[in-house]
Amino acid sequence: MTVDSSAGAGTAPLLVSTPADLRAATADLLERARAQRPAGPRPSLGLVPTMGGLHAGHASLARAAREANDVVVASVFVNPLQFGDPADLERYPRTLDDDLRLLGGAGVDIVFAPSVADMYPGGEPLVRLSAGRMGEVLEGASRPGHFDGMLTVVSKLLNLGLPGTAAEYHAYFGEKDAQQLAIIRRMVLDLNFPVAIEGVAIVRDDDGLALSSRNRFLGAEERRGALVLSRVLHGLAEDVRSGCTPDLDAARATVAAEAEVDLDYLEAVDPASFAPVAEGALTAAPVLVVVAARVGAVRLIDNVLLPTVG
Amino acid sequence: MTVDSSAGAGTAPLLVSTPADLRAATADLLERARAQRPAGPRPSLGLVPTMGGLHAGHASLARAAREANDVVVASVFVNPLQFGDPADLERYPRTLDDDLRLLGGAGVDIVFAPSVADMYPGGEPLVRLSAGRMGEVLEGASRPGHFDGMLTVVSKLLNLGLPGTAAEYHAYFGEKDAQQLAIIRRMVLDLNFPVAIEGVAIVRDDDGLALSSRNRFLGAEERRGALVLSRVLHGLAEDVRSGCTPDLDAARATVAAEAEVDLDYLEAVDPASFAPVAEGALTAAPVLVVVAARVGAVRLIDNVLLPTVG
Repeated sequence: MTVDSSAGAGTAPLLVSTPADLRAATADLLERARAQRPAGPRPSLGLVPTMGGLHAGHASLARAAREANDVVVASVFVNPLQFGDPADLERYPRTLDDDLRLLGGAGVDIVFAPSVADMYPGGEPLVRLSAGRMGEVLEGASRPGHFDGMLTVVSKLLNLGLPGTAAEYHAYFGEKDAQQLAIIRRMVLDLNFPVAIEGVAIVRDDDGLALSSRNRFLGAEERRGALVLSRVLHGLAEDVRSGCTPDLDAARATVAAEAEVDLDYLEAVDPASFAPVAEGALTAAPVLVVVAARVGAVRLIDNVLLPTVG
Repeated sequence: MTVDSSAGAGTAPLLVSTPADLRAATADLLERARAQRPAGPRPSLGLVPTMGGLHAGHASLARAAREANDVVVASVFVNPLQFGDPADLERYPRTLDDDLRLLGGAGVDIVFAPSVADMYPGGEPLVRLSAGRMGEVLEGASRPGHFDGMLTVVSKLLNLGLPGTAAEYHAYFGEKDAQQLAIIRRMVLDLNFPVAIEGVAIVRDDDGLALSSRNRFLGAEERRGALVLSRVLHGLAEDVRSGCTPDLDAARATVAAEAEVDLDYLEAVDPASFAPVAEGALTAAPVLVVVAARVGAVRLIDNVLLPTVG
């Protein structure tokens, strides 16, 4: 795919806040891309939904979108619907100036940063999406309503980003939020959204900690303790590679032994359905091990896809 | 809007059953419409979702779509999700040959008649829509889950019909199913579906009975009794026009006195929110009076918008 020459990496992205401005700006750039190759393949649009507080993990989403699409739109919106805890919503980082620099550096063309009123002109939405049983386990069990709120705003963003012209349409989500990604893929299947969902690999700090907007709230001791999460996941994958049977109970015990860390769950699931996988079937088909823990005031999640043994 | 000359009224519509065929056929006709007026306004697509068992009320939806759009798609799909009662689903009329003739006569270009497997390739949808409190009252109280199932399939049909090219997009629904129409409008507002929802007036038989696919199951005596519904609604509107205060209790008593008719509800509501309207406020703003009753084995609904008194 050709990158629109009007918006190379490093250019400040166009900032829009209303759905109408978003649609107009997207249509304009797609039209330019089409004009540059009237006989070529139809232009493509990549959407990168975020809640701001951006880090290198988000930059990798934006770069993946930039590499594959003519036009890249990122959204920055802290969605009140998916926060069960008002304190968590209140302290969620809002860093729009930094976010714009990061997104511009990754080559994003348009940043859609609506207010709550721009997103919900009719007030609290009455019609919502429901994730069903996939949204009730693991993260959903700890955060009731979270996935329903997430799906409701993602469906809005997908509809708002929808190219009003002949174009390929992709949307990018991080694999760190593995259950979110699986539920979004299921939504697209169940509701026939005309978009291809692209998962992007977890980005980790040098010490192994998966990047998260909430990591900034970790104290030094907490951060050291939090490393147990990526360490046990890595260990389980290594066990499979070296022909040993991964031992989930031992992994749980290792996490529980860390003073700063309060384990919520560590489970093996089918990566698409998030149905539990029996301990004896961990290496037969692709299995995702997902972990969640509270570290200080912060809830962290991480996951690893176990290698399969032929 | 120009009507695509390739598909005038009376031509047999193109019958497709898979989402891929629907998208290809729609794109092809929209491209032809665009080619006919390259410098003119962008082409328009009208979608008419139905459950088959079609009658003159559906024909009026299709004609409204035909008059306003270059390309008209009707869908015929009996959606299992919105039937709580298996017996009702079982006996819901399936009359595809007759439906195709009626839709062809109204000038529909494409009929999308998927199987249940075509619509739900992933099995029962896990991700669904929820109508919230608008879906819990009146029809929703009598038919738990009905509006959630309806929204789920309507969102799928809107996504499947979505023009993959620059086009205006309209979808047509009958005003007889007033609560359904209000909930669909709210869905489009809450979830930003890129479609304009068009309501089409109720079509009545000469005796006043609102057309319904289920009317065919009424015996002669039941049908005579059923006329009380349109008669009391008409009477309430007449009361307002002649300066009298409409009396909902008297209307309820009239319906209840009819031997064949078992009244479920007769209520005054705000036409957009379906919130109840107090008896003293019936003529201040537009008010919809909705009625539902069981007549023999059939559940019937009807409604009237009361005139406002300046």
